[in-house]
Amino acid sequence: MIPVLSLDMKDPLDFIEMYGSFEHVKVGHNLAVEGRRILHKLSKRGLKIILDLKFMDIPSTVARAIRCWDHPSVVGFTVCGAAGIGSVKAALESTDKTIFSVIKLTSLKGALNNGHIHTIKKLDALGSSFVLPPSWAKLLRDRLRGEFLVPGVRMEVPAGEQKDIVTLEEIEGIADYAILGREVYACADPAGKLAWIKGVTERWR
Amino acid sequence: MIPVLSLDMKDPLDFIEMYGSFEHVKVGHNLAVEGRRILHKLSKRGLKIILDLKFMDIPSTVARAIRCWDHPSVVGFTVCGAAGIGSVKAALESTDKTIFSVIKLTSLKGALNNGHIHTIKKLDALGSSFVLPPSWAKLLRDRLRGEFLVPGVRMEVPAGEQKDIVTLEEIEGIADYAILGREVYACADPAGKLAWIKGVTERWR
Repeated sequence: MIPVLSLDMKDPLDFIEMYGSFEHVKVGHNLAVEGRRILHKLSKRGLKIILDLKFMDIPSTVARAIRCWDHPSVVGFTVCGAAGIGSVKAALESTDKTIFSVIKLTSLKGALNNGHIHTIKKLDALGSSFVLPPSWAKLLRDRLRGEFLVPGVRMEVPAGEQKDIVTLEEIEGIADYAILGREVYACADPAGKLAWIKGVTERWR
Repeated sequence: MIPVLSLDMKDPLDFIEMYGSFEHVKVGHNLAVEGRRILHKLSKRGLKIILDLKFMDIPSTVARAIRCWDHPSVVGFTVCGAAGIGSVKAALESTDKTIFSVIKLTSLKGALNNGHIHTIKKLDALGSSFVLPPSWAKLLRDRLRGEFLVPGVRMEVPAGEQKDIVTLEEIEGIADYAILGREVYACADPAGKLAWIKGVTERWR
């Protein structure tokens, strides 16, 4: 399992300077407002980026968004499954990087049903990877070949808006990438937490 | 009706320099890669911006994306209805600007059903405006108080991926904002088309 630091804290670059980071980071709109040059800044720190802008548009627009935002340091992009099979296909065809289809936000309720599974299997057959809430990731691991990026990992920090949370241990062998945000930056000892998670996840590889 | 120039052509600033623009423009990821400073550049040209990044995330992240991207020249943001009522509510609470909930992409098939109407009415009650495919806009105009931003306007340029297209005349009295992209920049005479559309839509106000 690869831990991914979600750079949604205040002043992410200062945070990294002070406490360090995992090798993989997740970049959202709070940093995207700096434009593509932020990817270059992160790249200079040796970081690998999952660009989490959850592209949601018609196929040609999604493909163009990916081509516009691409950068050597980007290893993956998130795209909304709700944009449709055609849009995810266009995303996959626009890049060699990993495309993570977002199937369901962790803030939403709702159980995995046959409609979801039908869509997910189609996306999987196209070569998509997935952002999946922990409980869905557990149910789907043996049925899909795509990689899983799993949010909602919590050990000691309160769940907040996340309706579906999980510990690192519980998604070992299930998540290929585990997103860690508040669990790292909102804890008492971010540097210690980063080190502990690095140690645990390296042992699992 | 207010015409909105979709800045998804190649080299949008050059296009505006050469042919002009409507007062309102729609900005997507092809320009967002320049970061927030692109809003300032457009603002210096006197343009009003609808920022069309179709935010799709948990409530706090959507609210933050809007606060991060906000700029005096931005008059509206698009947010995905599929992010859930809570996320649209958070978007509305994060700004005084218009929030356009994207209900269905024009590249997707599917008829307006009771499930959609239920969601749309809830969003409308919260104060949301809407991005609606033309045929849905026609069906919903009398049932909602939110403003309608309607894509898929075509008069002479081929429909491409858009499954649901309409002429300007057909959405008069229905669309508050009409998005015009290819119909302007992919036609033989962009400056003439801009002038013609400005004339027609001004007479309708």
